[in-house]
Amino acid sequence: MKQSEWWIRNEPPERSLAPIRQGRRIPQHYGTSVPERRVHHGGAESAAPRRRPFSRVTADDLVFFRGVLPGRVITDPDVLESCNVDWLKTVKGNSEVLLRPKTTDEVSQILRYCNARNLAVCPQGGNTGLVGGSVPVFDEIILSTALLNRVLAFDTISGILTCQAGCVLESLSEYADKQDFVMPLDLGAKGSCHIGGNVSTNAGGLRLLRYGSLRGTVLGLEVVLADGRVLNLLASLRKDNTGFDLKQLFIGSEGTLGVVTAVTILCPRKPRSINVAFLGCSSFQNLLKTFHMCRGMLGEILSAFEFLDASCMSLLENHLKLTNPISESPFYIVIETAGSNSAHDEEKLHNFLDKVMTSSLVTDGTVATEEAKIKALWSLRERVTEALRHDGYTYKYDISLPVEKIYDLVTDMKEHLGSRAKNVVGYGHVGDGNLHLNVISPTKDVGLLAAIEPYVYEWAARCRGSISAEHGLGLKKRNFIYYSKVPEAVALMANIKAMLDPRGILNPYKTLPDDAHSR
Amino acid sequence: MKQSEWWIRNEPPERSLAPIRQGRRIPQHYGTSVPERRVHHGGAESAAPRRRPFSRVTADDLVFFRGVLPGRVITDPDVLESCNVDWLKTVKGNSEVLLRPKTTDEVSQILRYCNARNLAVCPQGGNTGLVGGSVPVFDEIILSTALLNRVLAFDTISGILTCQAGCVLESLSEYADKQDFVMPLDLGAKGSCHIGGNVSTNAGGLRLLRYGSLRGTVLGLEVVLADGRVLNLLASLRKDNTGFDLKQLFIGSEGTLGVVTAVTILCPRKPRSINVAFLGCSSFQNLLKTFHMCRGMLGEILSAFEFLDASCMSLLENHLKLTNPISESPFYIVIETAGSNSAHDEEKLHNFLDKVMTSSLVTDGTVATEEAKIKALWSLRERVTEALRHDGYTYKYDISLPVEKIYDLVTDMKEHLGSRAKNVVGYGHVGDGNLHLNVISPTKDVGLLAAIEPYVYEWAARCRGSISAEHGLGLKKRNFIYYSKVPEAVALMANIKAMLDPRGILNPYKTLPDDAHSR
Repeated sequence: MKQSEWWIRNEPPERSLAPIRQGRRIPQHYGTSVPERRVHHGGAESAAPRRRPFSRVTADDLVFFRGVLPGRVITDPDVLESCNVDWLKTVKGNSEVLLRPKTTDEVSQILRYCNARNLAVCPQGGNTGLVGGSVPVFDEIILSTALLNRVLAFDTISGILTCQAGCVLESLSEYADKQDFVMPLDLGAKGSCHIGGNVSTNAGGLRLLRYGSLRGTVLGLEVVLADGRVLNLLASLRKDNTGFDLKQLFIGSEGTLGVVTAVTILCPRKPRSINVAFLGCSSFQNLLKTFHMCRGMLGEILSAFEFLDASCMSLLENHLKLTNPISESPFYIVIETAGSNSAHDEEKLHNFLDKVMTSSLVTDGTVATEEAKIKALWSLRERVTEALRHDGYTYKYDISLPVEKIYDLVTDMKEHLGSRAKNVVGYGHVGDGNLHLNVISPTKDVGLLAAIEPYVYEWAARCRGSISAEHGLGLKKRNFIYYSKVPEAVALMANIKAMLDPRGILNPYKTLPDDAHSR
Repeated sequence: MKQSEWWIRNEPPERSLAPIRQGRRIPQHYGTSVPERRVHHGGAESAAPRRRPFSRVTADDLVFFRGVLPGRVITDPDVLESCNVDWLKTVKGNSEVLLRPKTTDEVSQILRYCNARNLAVCPQGGNTGLVGGSVPVFDEIILSTALLNRVLAFDTISGILTCQAGCVLESLSEYADKQDFVMPLDLGAKGSCHIGGNVSTNAGGLRLLRYGSLRGTVLGLEVVLADGRVLNLLASLRKDNTGFDLKQLFIGSEGTLGVVTAVTILCPRKPRSINVAFLGCSSFQNLLKTFHMCRGMLGEILSAFEFLDASCMSLLENHLKLTNPISESPFYIVIETAGSNSAHDEEKLHNFLDKVMTSSLVTDGTVATEEAKIKALWSLRERVTEALRHDGYTYKYDISLPVEKIYDLVTDMKEHLGSRAKNVVGYGHVGDGNLHLNVISPTKDVGLLAAIEPYVYEWAARCRGSISAEHGLGLKKRNFIYYSKVPEAVALMANIKAMLDPRGILNPYKTLPDDAHSR
């Protein structure tokens, strides 16, 4: 059996009986040069947790599950194999049971039972998460939302969609499109990811610049709590100030506070006109100037401003055989406009392109207005993650920074790592100040990891950035939370977790740091 | 001493020693025709609460406060008079102490002391709330944010503003304007309301249609908890998925979970071109058709779609001597466009107006592009609340409904009340499905109130609407929460309150229903 920092197997049975506190690390908080509210943790904090003393699934448990979910209790090792491993193939659990409920009531019955039996549960959507949040760590029961896949309502006047949590984002996009609306979020994993997972991760994606985050567009949720209680917060209203907005607790909490079973989301009208420009820039400084000019000149029709560097382009060409549609450049920009009047939009875009070309901020470019060409240009940005996977073992970082600093981190990391890394690449959402930094190595390399972490987190903390802009913390980054959150906030999170899930059965070992449970 | 349903005075001292549970009502939950998840409460639920057994302020307490806030502990009855009464003059407390901290540390010291001493505290911003949330109910200490009024930082690249909670919204708007940005919210009370109060109420206002709610635009908060702990959540990032988003708990919780002391908010770029159209419609049906056409034709430049009915216009003319700029109509619309290209915006607006005039959806109209005229047109919408105050005693309702139903409630209420009401008027935010329904009576009228409530709440609940779209629940509507929230959600809110403020000292008698505390 392979062993590494991320391939986690069950602890031997004798350890599983250890008391909860035994396996937990108390991190060393020591002073550094990072701002006063950051706390420095050693790289060892990312190491595997110890299994907590949850019960193990018995034959009697399977009998109960089969009664609730006839034909939908999976124990076939071949099927379980793919659900135990994350998309990046960097984290692996050892669950022996996969449950596939179709209704909220079934989810409720399962959780009520698991809570009473002290059985740990890992909720799983499309399993496209990038921080090890969507797969079991040990033998947690996998609770899949795949069959919770019905659209429940769509209001063609307001664009308000209500659907079960397991609807695939791309299917919802196609559904909304037919009604002349669009989903307010879009991301590379759309073909697999579930809306419930998107909500639980507070996914950002490619349209956040235009339509804002899920905290504004999600109008209601239905959530099953750890003890099986169903919390119906499925309002279809743009405004509702009656008490605390509880649904916000479940957006972005990665399934640790409850299982999202249904979502109400506000879909914007489908824009009548969409244009995509793919541009080349000679420096990141020029890219930033282009962004500044773009916001002024495209204003309300700007719907995305994304970038990738030359290394990303090489990976796309080498591994996915995509073609660079313009001349080689150090940086590439994808700009999307979406508006209600194609003549106006094209005029704005033309004026903007004219200005950035004549002022030499942009060295080359192409514009698409037809759907097929738009998709082709977008795939150059969307498929970078996929291309990276073919290049070696990838250490992924998802950092929020003040926009003017986002590429400095890539440059600095290249210098810092030198020849230890095979490749250091940067791409991401300029409009949101969100860099995806990726360090590639031929194989897993503990020494390289130690050179990256906590260096990268300290770097982000010095700029008062976030160590996870949109991916969440999951298993991999849980112990680095203190780089972005004060200890008082983490302690309060732990209180909320204890209130909603006192036995800790929901997605254990994720999001909250190991020390949060022992305080 | 006057006594009425809303003018609440201190209970006699002997009652103040009663145990907490004694004064609480257990509401009767009985079946009605409202949807299954609504619970019907009798009108009596809106009645005054009993004072809970908090300590009373002593001379020793004043000595402590004066040590922390030299010269800023106010006991002058004339000054206290105005802080004890709400803007509508419908709710009155009897506080004898007003504290005016200037720093977060001072707020922390005060709350730590009050919590230890079991002294109740009413946080107060601009005191412009409409549900009795911003004034004491009995003798709670008033904690004013008026001197927490400094701008702390402004990033001219990103438009991210950080300021203390007591900054007046209009001052912030002027400040942002000078930097070529705008505040993402605007409301009639802007000249008095504080940003901390806006956040604590989750204020909606006139720009929500364009810039979304505060849940998306507020990037960070600093909050002092009931026990004096300072929770620094002042991130300046558009995206940050590191753990649960705790700041959301404090947005819209009306000062019951913590005192907001500083806010970080994302300001959009100032639009280069603003137009306002003031239009007349012969029916609400035509108004809705106009709205539908408007969303399609103005699309991304539409920044507000507001309405008032003919009765509102009469009140503006009679009480505020404003002039109707167009011919008399049953309904008036205010449409604002905000964009980056004035030629494009004017062409879009012209095309739209041409279409709605030729199709007779709109009967008359005027358009403003200059600032002074824009302000004059906007004042017809913004000053309705003020005009109402001159017309008699006003029962105010702030209802979210599916947009196609919002005026049906006004029509139905007129019929339902008949001659018992002096006037029934409707205005509000069509774009958000948010109706402001106002019933006017020459004087307070218990019989009239009984005819309105719970009728209006049942009406809203049948449409799965919200009984408070943007005003919050405060004192007045706390017991009606079950019309919009399931009991499980209210119970969870009470758990959160108990976790963050175990002694219940922060803004007692507000937001949560009386029965939530006794469960």
